[in-house]
Amino acid sequence: MNSIPVGVLGATGIVGQRYVSLLENHPWFRVSYVAASPRSAGKTYAQAVSGRWLMGTEIPPAAASLTVGDANDARAALGKCALVFSALEMDKQALKTLEETYAGEGIPVISNASVHRWTPDVPVLLPEINPHHTEVIRFQQKARGWKKGFIAVKPNCSIQSYMAPVHALNQAGFPAARMIVTTLQAVSGAGYPGVPSFDMIDNVIPFIQGEEEKTETEALKIFGTVEGGVIVNAGGPLISAHCNRVPVSDGHTACVSLEFALPKDKKPSLETIERVWTSFSALPQELALPSAPAHPIILRREPNRPQPARDRDVDKGMAVVVGRLRPCRVFDIRFAALSHNTRRGAALGGILNAELLKAQGFFD
Amino acid sequence: MNSIPVGVLGATGIVGQRYVSLLENHPWFRVSYVAASPRSAGKTYAQAVSGRWLMGTEIPPAAASLTVGDANDARAALGKCALVFSALEMDKQALKTLEETYAGEGIPVISNASVHRWTPDVPVLLPEINPHHTEVIRFQQKARGWKKGFIAVKPNCSIQSYMAPVHALNQAGFPAARMIVTTLQAVSGAGYPGVPSFDMIDNVIPFIQGEEEKTETEALKIFGTVEGGVIVNAGGPLISAHCNRVPVSDGHTACVSLEFALPKDKKPSLETIERVWTSFSALPQELALPSAPAHPIILRREPNRPQPARDRDVDKGMAVVVGRLRPCRVFDIRFAALSHNTRRGAALGGILNAELLKAQGFFD
Amino acid sequence: MNSIPVGVLGATGIVGQRYVSLLENHPWFRVSYVAASPRSAGKTYAQAVSGRWLMGTEIPPAAASLTVGDANDARAALGKCALVFSALEMDKQALKTLEETYAGEGIPVISNASVHRWTPDVPVLLPEINPHHTEVIRFQQKARGWKKGFIAVKPNCSIQSYMAPVHALNQAGFPAARMIVTTLQAVSGAGYPGVPSFDMIDNVIPFIQGEEEKTETEALKIFGTVEGGVIVNAGGPLISAHCNRVPVSDGHTACVSLEFALPKDKKPSLETIERVWTSFSALPQELALPSAPAHPIILRREPNRPQPARDRDVDKGMAVVVGRLRPCRVFDIRFAALSHNTRRGAALGGILNAELLKAQGFFD
Amino acid sequence: MNSIPVGVLGATGIVGQRYVSLLENHPWFRVSYVAASPRSAGKTYAQAVSGRWLMGTEIPPAAASLTVGDANDARAALGKCALVFSALEMDKQALKTLEETYAGEGIPVISNASVHRWTPDVPVLLPEINPHHTEVIRFQQKARGWKKGFIAVKPNCSIQSYMAPVHALNQAGFPAARMIVTTLQAVSGAGYPGVPSFDMIDNVIPFIQGEEEKTETEALKIFGTVEGGVIVNAGGPLISAHCNRVPVSDGHTACVSLEFALPKDKKPSLETIERVWTSFSALPQELALPSAPAHPIILRREPNRPQPARDRDVDKGMAVVVGRLRPCRVFDIRFAALSHNTRRGAALGGILNAELLKAQGFFD
Repeated sequence: MNSIPVGVLGATGIVGQRYVSLLENHPWFRVSYVAASPRSAGKTYAQAVSGRWLMGTEIPPAAASLTVGDANDARAALGKCALVFSALEMDKQALKTLEETYAGEGIPVISNASVHRWTPDVPVLLPEINPHHTEVIRFQQKARGWKKGFIAVKPNCSIQSYMAPVHALNQAGFPAARMIVTTLQAVSGAGYPGVPSFDMIDNVIPFIQGEEEKTETEALKIFGTVEGGVIVNAGGPLISAHCNRVPVSDGHTACVSLEFALPKDKKPSLETIERVWTSFSALPQELALPSAPAHPIILRREPNRPQPARDRDVDKGMAVVVGRLRPCRVFDIRFAALSHNTRRGAALGGILNAELLKAQGFFD
Repeated sequence: MNSIPVGVLGATGIVGQRYVSLLENHPWFRVSYVAASPRSAGKTYAQAVSGRWLMGTEIPPAAASLTVGDANDARAALGKCALVFSALEMDKQALKTLEETYAGEGIPVISNASVHRWTPDVPVLLPEINPHHTEVIRFQQKARGWKKGFIAVKPNCSIQSYMAPVHALNQAGFPAARMIVTTLQAVSGAGYPGVPSFDMIDNVIPFIQGEEEKTETEALKIFGTVEGGVIVNAGGPLISAHCNRVPVSDGHTACVSLEFALPKDKKPSLETIERVWTSFSALPQELALPSAPAHPIILRREPNRPQPARDRDVDKGMAVVVGRLRPCRVFDIRFAALSHNTRRGAALGGILNAELLKAQGFFD
Repeated sequence: MNSIPVGVLGATGIVGQRYVSLLENHPWFRVSYVAASPRSAGKTYAQAVSGRWLMGTEIPPAAASLTVGDANDARAALGKCALVFSALEMDKQALKTLEETYAGEGIPVISNASVHRWTPDVPVLLPEINPHHTEVIRFQQKARGWKKGFIAVKPNCSIQSYMAPVHALNQAGFPAARMIVTTLQAVSGAGYPGVPSFDMIDNVIPFIQGEEEKTETEALKIFGTVEGGVIVNAGGPLISAHCNRVPVSDGHTACVSLEFALPKDKKPSLETIERVWTSFSALPQELALPSAPAHPIILRREPNRPQPARDRDVDKGMAVVVGRLRPCRVFDIRFAALSHNTRRGAALGGILNAELLKAQGFFD
Repeated sequence: MNSIPVGVLGATGIVGQRYVSLLENHPWFRVSYVAASPRSAGKTYAQAVSGRWLMGTEIPPAAASLTVGDANDARAALGKCALVFSALEMDKQALKTLEETYAGEGIPVISNASVHRWTPDVPVLLPEINPHHTEVIRFQQKARGWKKGFIAVKPNCSIQSYMAPVHALNQAGFPAARMIVTTLQAVSGAGYPGVPSFDMIDNVIPFIQGEEEKTETEALKIFGTVEGGVIVNAGGPLISAHCNRVPVSDGHTACVSLEFALPKDKKPSLETIERVWTSFSALPQELALPSAPAHPIILRREPNRPQPARDRDVDKGMAVVVGRLRPCRVFDIRFAALSHNTRRGAALGGILNAELLKAQGFFD
């Protein structure tokens, strides 16, 4: 119980704070190491986050008394933790190198950052969809001469509301050919301080830097296959995204129109789709991973759901909530999907990745 | 100047209040008659709206002292106004009949209600797009034995952000075949009291009763042709809509993916589209109607516009603001469009319709 | 465990829904009876709330299958529950009589309504402050010839953020003489549909009907004494209130300036006040009532707390969170206090009252 | 008409942008010079604000083509403008010195910054209250050896909603002795980027750094007298403030409890107070200064006004709107007051100051 020591890099930022908070009562992991910029290094964690603790709960006492390490010094983490969660905010190239340094020192890195999402031998994990992608880690280690260390990452939060529904349909024999997706994204996805309130009160911002590209392409890697030691992207579906920021604290909503890659007579009925979604279960459920939702996809049949304020917290914020399934006048189906962007979409998703990797024996 | 007396039916409701406010300094029209439910009839307008005046400006003094008539009594309006703006909220069938009664009494009805939008000989007017549809009024009058009275209506507010841009392209030789549209609609579109704040703080509601159907079909009537005394719907474009309510006071945003009904080599470039939009002008501009915007379509080139809080009020809230024009990975183009739902989309749009009808000689 | 059957009157409204939700896993109580208006009577609870279930969690399965009774028929509840929680919304005089009818039938009534707050032999309970007021119930029963039934009520939500802090100081020998209080109240306090979002987006409403009077006077009854079978109001403190509605979903904030009824040299230091607050504990804590917070008053020392979004949920939403304790330039001290208006201030407060009454032997 | 050239220092920031926008069609002034940090110097103003223009209107064309000067170089402004509006954001001591440098070079400085508010020979102007304080400028110039240059400043935005009402009463013979004030302040008061939306959605922050001190003390200087070449603070009223940030874009609300410095039988009735407020007029109205409101104090008698969303824009955002006048149970009266913090409270207030100084002959 609670016996595996883990580290959090970037522990003083808002994502790092979420890791520290969410790990407080984790059945397997306990936070044994926190690291941040040199400015914070040497202070206790409580001192380092004083005046900028953003969680609704208190600083976990066990973490409060830890001494903050210098995140730039990977060796400082040696012997202190079995893996690190990377929630660092820094220059992209420097971060890419730094995560590799940790891995090179023998420390597995479960990263929230986007810098390694397109590294071909780094898996972008959604444990209900591509848990087998972790096999690329053996190639990653071999190719780079790493013994114990490795890098695994999570995808962007904007895609997580519809990835499980689309995957479940694909697995049931109903692959998507084309999708047009409009997201209504919460401000917590922009980090802290993030979006100024001057821009968000009584307003919508129809643009998020870099988000549409990620939304359109990351799915292809996640749906890809491991071949020759790297992940080869899937050929589809083709996705076009409109990403909007809306005045919501947590919870990304997606409005999806989807066309199946199937002849007309093979397309699933709405009833079939509902059945596929409600019965969907995957490896994390089978392994009963602590952070896995009981049901990865929750279907709501009320006409006006899902709603962020009502549905984001279902099952620890780890389930996707779908609703408004109906025919599309242009494609085949339309639906709305919701995912908690800081739970499933960020820190708790990262923790689930670590649970999967532990269950698969990738670290002790 | 200001010499044409007009009436407002439903003058105590929020849309009626907007008509009364917006007409305060109109160069052609002056409010000479207000009518509402029997409950308000007989009071002065000031008394009738006391404690429920929702505008940011004072009750116009000239209207304040008017005696409220009973809206159910069409004859009470006779001789008091050259036309009535209908902003009544009541049972749909009763409203349909009542509007016809006013017309039958010889009083033109410019309606905000949806009840006559699908009556084949009633024009659904967007003066920049289908000003020629008013010719159906002569048939309407003849068929029903009406001399001076008639009914003309405005379309739903949810479609007005993208109708002008799509029409301008069509007129330039670039017709749309298919569109997938996601709207982010302001709460003022739901009337008053409308959406409870309990449902709107920190939330999105992915559903508006009846709105998607209107969004998908009204365009076809507006793009239609007058044939045999009725309006025959256009065959396209085919539209699929996702309508959402967001915590915004005024201003509906639409995210549009559009496919042209053209072979690949005939499709317009983004530069061509920009030119079509920025140079678009129509009959209301030519006639210099008082409520017409100088430029019906405003193009913003910043990456993060249009935004309701920044762009809804441009040119009295009568221009459409488009932005984020870019290629669509699935269809041909994507863009965001914004329209002020209570100005262009409701009362001021109704006033512009009256201005057009006046200019075309449909009433004195 | 969970063996005491309880009823909820007004179970289909938003407060009734909260009772049903919050009681789902209660260690002592289980919902065995639900009643509402005749319109809902005869349906299952699931049917009755279909399309208007407002909670973020599912309808508790056990409640979903209950048949809804007619709340106007007190006898229908006989034998079905040991007490009823009254969350009825109806005409005040009728409600007053109806609650008495239930009590007359032998059914204890724990009410959220304001109708009996000024009935002299009905206690207005805040269990941390006046648990001894329940002794008036014996007089209430005797005077009215009731055997087992009685009525007990909870105070208005607007006062609950500062009542415990003021009481704790009073009990420590530092009574308040005068207070000027400004509240910033959440929209959920207005019920459902409550405040229109049109009035609440980008806005503050400096008025809540009847709220200032309640805020100023209910404290005097709660701080009163039981004499001659009725509750005699305390003589102070004198309170002046400014009640505002703000765009917050849950959590009422109060800004308090307070003058002690003490000579200058007897006034407590800020350190003393902090110690009084942080060490405050009362009968509910001693009895370990299931819904009682571990610490009724939580003191936050950060300069910018309490905040509704960060602090309302502490200890099930049952603790008061105070902060910004500092000298007042006009009175003696200033502070900000926060209470969760639908938890402590409404349904969960009612449940705590029932727990207290059970522990005191007022029902079986 | 429009013949006086003026400069804006800090022209690229949000307050500077407001100056540039609000001056676009000013009848006396035209923006002839803009200055900002060295980073922007040398660019055109349009280039310098590209991508960070925050106003709802377009960049005024005349300003767009101006070349941005280096604000640190006061001499660069010589000959280019008759005065400068200072909207600089920089180190306080450096700013204090820099404003003096401009004045020393002969350029009058009308400042939005707080750095000179407590300089005894610098007037803190609210033209309806203390227009005679400008006489201290002659002493200021003499003492410092300045010929044409001088410094005049505006007070903090948090006090402007109640200063005029309190002053009007004082002038009518009803001076205030003590006031307890709670403000509900808009986010635009925090500048840009200001308050993160993560902190403001569904939340209230009961703290604004330094704001309560300003709120409590600046009034005393404004109500002071010019004696011996400096402004001597008034002895009262004694003010205690609670300053809160609320999710409102523009418009600061204050809830005020006020005690008069008068024996009981001399205290004014509510009717008298209403008459004092509605009849209040001052020098800016007499001089018909372009930015002066027709009525400095607007009284609303509806129970639920003033509200930011409804009342902030009255008379160009330059009038104070008061309402909810009623007896205070602790002091004498209570009321709510509203002022537009970026119009009256910032840029347009600064412009009104300049208009007053021009009318009084302090510059050509």
